[in-house]
Amino acid sequence: MRKTVIGVMGPGADATKRDIENAQLLGELIAKKGWAVLSGGRNTGVMDAVSKGAKGKKGLTIGILPDDDKTKFSEALDVVIVTNMRSGRNYINVLSSDIIIACGMNSGTASEIALALQSQKPIILLSEDEESKIFFKKLGGNLVHLANNPKEAIPIIEKLLENQK
Amino acid sequence: MRKTVIGVMGPGADATKRDIENAQLLGELIAKKGWAVLSGGRNTGVMDAVSKGAKGKKGLTIGILPDDDKTKFSEALDVVIVTNMRSGRNYINVLSSDIIIACGMNSGTASEIALALQSQKPIILLSEDEESKIFFKKLGGNLVHLANNPKEAIPIIEKLLENQK
Amino acid sequence: MRKTVIGVMGPGADATKRDIENAQLLGELIAKKGWAVLSGGRNTGVMDAVSKGAKGKKGLTIGILPDDDKTKFSEALDVVIVTNMRSGRNYINVLSSDIIIACGMNSGTASEIALALQSQKPIILLSEDEESKIFFKKLGGNLVHLANNPKEAIPIIEKLLENQK
Amino acid sequence: MRKTVIGVMGPGADATKRDIENAQLLGELIAKKGWAVLSGGRNTGVMDAVSKGAKGKKGLTIGILPDDDKTKFSEALDVVIVTNMRSGRNYINVLSSDIIIACGMNSGTASEIALALQSQKPIILLSEDEESKIFFKKLGGNLVHLANNPKEAIPIIEKLLENQK
Repeated sequence: MRKTVIGVMGPGADATKRDIENAQLLGELIAKKGWAVLSGGRNTGVMDAVSKGAKGKKGLTIGILPDDDKTKFSEALDVVIVTNMRSGRNYINVLSSDIIIACGMNSGTASEIALALQSQKPIILLSEDEESKIFFKKLGGNLVHLANNPKEAIPIIEKLLENQK
Repeated sequence: MRKTVIGVMGPGADATKRDIENAQLLGELIAKKGWAVLSGGRNTGVMDAVSKGAKGKKGLTIGILPDDDKTKFSEALDVVIVTNMRSGRNYINVLSSDIIIACGMNSGTASEIALALQSQKPIILLSEDEESKIFFKKLGGNLVHLANNPKEAIPIIEKLLENQK
Repeated sequence: MRKTVIGVMGPGADATKRDIENAQLLGELIAKKGWAVLSGGRNTGVMDAVSKGAKGKKGLTIGILPDDDKTKFSEALDVVIVTNMRSGRNYINVLSSDIIIACGMNSGTASEIALALQSQKPIILLSEDEESKIFFKKLGGNLVHLANNPKEAIPIIEKLLENQK
Repeated sequence: MRKTVIGVMGPGADATKRDIENAQLLGELIAKKGWAVLSGGRNTGVMDAVSKGAKGKKGLTIGILPDDDKTKFSEALDVVIVTNMRSGRNYINVLSSDIIIACGMNSGTASEIALALQSQKPIILLSEDEESKIFFKKLGGNLVHLANNPKEAIPIIEKLLENQK
């Protein structure tokens, strides 16, 4: 009964055009598979794009919000979880996702990757930042997977979910 | 798009038979109205009963779990949020609900009522504990509503939701 | 080596004149015993008064702050813990105290008493609010102790600490 | 009145011999300057070594504990803050420190560096892990400082504290 949840983490206002496009497509592909999308829930950057992508394909969208400022909630969310913990919610993002995809890179995203590794959660990096790939691959070993684009991420997710059964 | 969320809080292993029956019926009635049910998410007491009641009527069920022990997740949850914050998650329960119903009474439930009042959230008490009604009515004034049974709670919720628009 | 920590919880801006006087005296008496004082850390109400009372007697003062707004930190704190969890920090207040004293009553204070009881922590109520005494005494049983004034609280603390050894 | 707090973050059971030696010396040097030491508080690895180093020089030692398991508290702590938030406490570690030193590297430490950068807190890296230096220097720019050993860290701290005034 419980939905499989794919967490998609990435920059907000500082997301690149490519991050946004990737997030939108990830949302669509995840929803088509019948999985729920979980994000940081704000109406900006990767959080907003992945939720909109999923919603456009009738997916279930979950947002873990840093605070209760309703003007900053993504409009594409079905389920809004309000934490009032600011970046402390990054840990909840990770714990509540079966698989985490990092779409782009900034300090918040890096914290989520590191917290995922600390919790032994598998992570897929979808980023053009070479230094982050080298660092996290060394740090996380077999937990860290690389994808060059959203389409490549889907079979990786399928295989990881198979392993979790 | 965002779902209206009714939080139902109450005892776990120490719930009374009446608490469980009330929670089950609350879950059914809330789901029939098209609202999502949010609870503490464990497979015991009010959390489990309200989720099962809602699920039986095709409602959306959300659980905010104190930890990642999967053997204690209610089987009737669609969305599982893992916090690893133990009772710190009580605050998130409250913040993520539009209206909170206290179904029964123990120290955890009392903390959720108090945190709801601190956050200016309306609360409906469904309890036979007279001292709690007297105390919280004095503490919370107009935010605190009393219901004698689950059916009485529904029109109160409808009116409160109307006021929040 | 670890300091014994007495948590003093109570209203902020809505504290009564009596709450403030009690908190100031509690801070002095606790510091004289060589115990540290822990509070919510803001520069208002019971939090500020108990910290100033303790500091005046060379006590160690700890504040668990809801956010990082430095203009609201009590000036009488030695140790400032910043949580950015808003009222979620109420749970940390309780967990980090060996004994909790509720000095006055509002919804935040009520949440701390309830969270203390949920964590099996002893609590001393110093309040003129009769309904709260009746409710929490029923809820918490032997964990709940009543004091009519700050001086009465000290031997109760000593006895409780003796039991915790 | 408020103590300057230097947060020292690093591996627990997986700390290297060099990490432990660096942490011990850092604790001593920080205490000699009159600053408090803040760590994750457990009786293992960098947390324990930095607390013992500071305590040996009469410094004030603060631990932010992931849970309430007293058998895992470092014996060298003056102030024990219990969060019951597991790795969620990493964010509080960072927020409660004026300056953060990363002594060694693992996923928990990486999360603390990233959360520090997200909160615009200065960080000093004391690690032999070259990939982490390259990655975090790129991610954090001017917020990230490098030290080859504990002694080099002290003048960097002094300069950063001067800038924060």
